Amino acid sequence: MITSQANAKVKQIIRLQKKGRERRRQDCFLVEGIRMFREAPPELVKEIYLSKSFRQNAEWMREFKEHLWAIEAVTGKEVCAELVEDWVFAQMSDTKTPQGILCVLSMPHYDLEARLAAADGTWVILEDLQDPGNLGTILRTAEGAGIEGVIMTENTVDIYNPKTIRSTMGSLYRVPFFVTEDIRKVLQKLKEQDFAVYAAHLDGKSCYDTFSYTGKCAFLIGNEGNGLKESTAALATDYVKIPMEGSVESLNAAIAASLLMYEAYRQRRSSGCERK
Amino acid sequence: MITSQANAKVKQIIRLQKKGRERRRQDCFLVEGIRMFREAPPELVKEIYLSKSFRQNAEWMREFKEHLWAIEAVTGKEVCAELVEDWVFAQMSDTKTPQGILCVLSMPHYDLEARLAAADGTWVILEDLQDPGNLGTILRTAEGAGIEGVIMTENTVDIYNPKTIRSTMGSLYRVPFFVTEDIRKVLQKLKEQDFAVYAAHLDGKSCYDTFSYTGKCAFLIGNEGNGLKESTAALATDYVKIPMEGSVESLNAAIAASLLMYEAYRQRRSSGCERK
Repeated sequence: MITSQANAKVKQIIRLQKKGRERRRQDCFLVEGIRMFREAPPELVKEIYLSKSFRQNAEWMREFKEHLWAIEAVTGKEVCAELVEDWVFAQMSDTKTPQGILCVLSMPHYDLEARLAAADGTWVILEDLQDPGNLGTILRTAEGAGIEGVIMTENTVDIYNPKTIRSTMGSLYRVPFFVTEDIRKVLQKLKEQDFAVYAAHLDGKSCYDTFSYTGKCAFLIGNEGNGLKESTAALATDYVKIPMEGSVESLNAAIAASLLMYEAYRQRRSSGCERK
Repeated sequence: MITSQANAKVKQIIRLQKKGRERRRQDCFLVEGIRMFREAPPELVKEIYLSKSFRQNAEWMREFKEHLWAIEAVTGKEVCAELVEDWVFAQMSDTKTPQGILCVLSMPHYDLEARLAAADGTWVILEDLQDPGNLGTILRTAEGAGIEGVIMTENTVDIYNPKTIRSTMGSLYRVPFFVTEDIRKVLQKLKEQDFAVYAAHLDGKSCYDTFSYTGKCAFLIGNEGNGLKESTAALATDYVKIPMEGSVESLNAAIAASLLMYEAYRQRRSSGCERK
C-alpha cells in the first residue's frame, strides 16, 4: 500500500495529471472514476490505483473486479491494482471528491488515412478550440450523432486534459480522433476524396438546415473567441449559417457543433442511411 | 480611489461574488468585463468599479464612457465610477485576469403570468440543473433560438453565479427568466393555457423531430446526473427522445436543450411563423 506522497509512483501520477507534455512523452493518460474504468478498452489499461475507501465500497469493488477480469481475459496478462491511503489518493486525483479509482492508460492511435478511406459519413474538424469542457462535450455528442471521427488542430486544448476526459463521459474511448499539424493538408485531402466541407461561419448566407449532409461531409468549427481563421475558412466547400434571434453574436462552440452534427444525423436517419 | 482591501465596498463586493444568499438579500448581482457593462440595461446599473489599468486603456474607456452617457440619458441620474488599485481589484474580481470593470446591477424581476399570457411561442423549463456553464449556455442558446422565457426550479444553480453570467454572453439581460418554488403548479398553469409540454426523457418513444413545435410549447429538461424527477416527468404532455448512436447514455443537458430549442426554431422558421 502507498502511504506517502513522496512515493515515486504518486509523483509520476501528479506529473501526468498536470502536464500534457509529460503525457505525450510517456504516450499515456489518466482516467478517474468507476465509470471511466469500466468502459476503458482492456488493451489500453497499464496501471490501476485504488483508495482505501474505494476498497470498502462493495458495489464499486464488484464492478471493478468484473472489468478487471475482462481486462485479464482480453489481454492475457495480470494487471495489479495498487492500494493507496485516502489522503495520498486525494493528492493524485484531479477531482475534489475522488471516487478512489485512477487508471493509467496508453494513448490510442488511429490511422486517419485508413479511417477516411473506410468511413464516408460525417466528420468534425476543430480549429484551436480552447475550452476543455467544449471539446469533451463535442466528443460526447459526436458519438451520439454517429460521427465518424473528430480531427483537431494541434493548438486545440489537449484531449487528455482531465476536464475534457470527464466531459466526454466515456466517448473518448469510442470516437476516433486525430490531431493534425497541418489543417490545410487535411482539408485538401478531404476534398480530394469528395468530402463537402461546411464551415460554421458568421458570413454564411444559407442556413445550416438547407444543405444536404447525407453524403460524405465534414463540419469545420473555429475557436471560441475568434471563430475560424480566414485562411482555413477559405478552404471550405461552403459556409453555413446558424440563424440567431436577438442580439446573439454567436453560439457556444460545442452548441454550434452539436446542432450541425445532429442536423446531419437527422437527415441521415430520415433518408434511411442510418449507421449500423 | 480605493487602495485597500479593507475598504467596506470591497468587502461588500467580495460577499456578493461569493454568496447567492447575499445577492438575493440585497436584490443585486455583479457583472464583469466591458462587454457585460456595455450591454447592461441602464435602469439596472447601481455601482461601477474600474481598475487603474482599465482607465489607461483608451479603447475600453471610450466604450465605457459611451455606455455611461447612455445610462445617464436613460435614467437621468449620474452614476459615479470608483477607481480601484489593480491589486485590490483583483481581490474583487471572480476572474483570473480581470479586464478591470465590475458593475453592481439590480436584479430584474419578470412577471411570469403576464409573460405567459402574452408570449405564446416556445418555453424552456429546467429542473435542478447544477452546472453553472450549462445554465449560462442554455440562456445564450435560448436567445438565439427565440425562446420566450426560461423557467427554473429553485434548486437550479443560481443564475447570478459569476460563471453562469459569463457563459450567458449577455443573454442574461435579454431572455426573461423565472425561478419557481413549485414546478408542478407552473406545469399545470402551462397546460391550462394550452401549452404542450415535452419532456426530454430516455423513455421517450418518438424522436424529438417527429413532433410539431410551431404552437404553444415548452421543453422540460432535467438535472445533469439524474434527469427529470418521475413526478415532474409525469406532468408532461409527451416524452421526446433524442436518438443516440453508440454507447451514449445521455447528452449534456445544455446540448439536449439546445437541440430541442433549435428544432422548434427550425420548424417555426420553415412554417413561416418567424418571430419579429
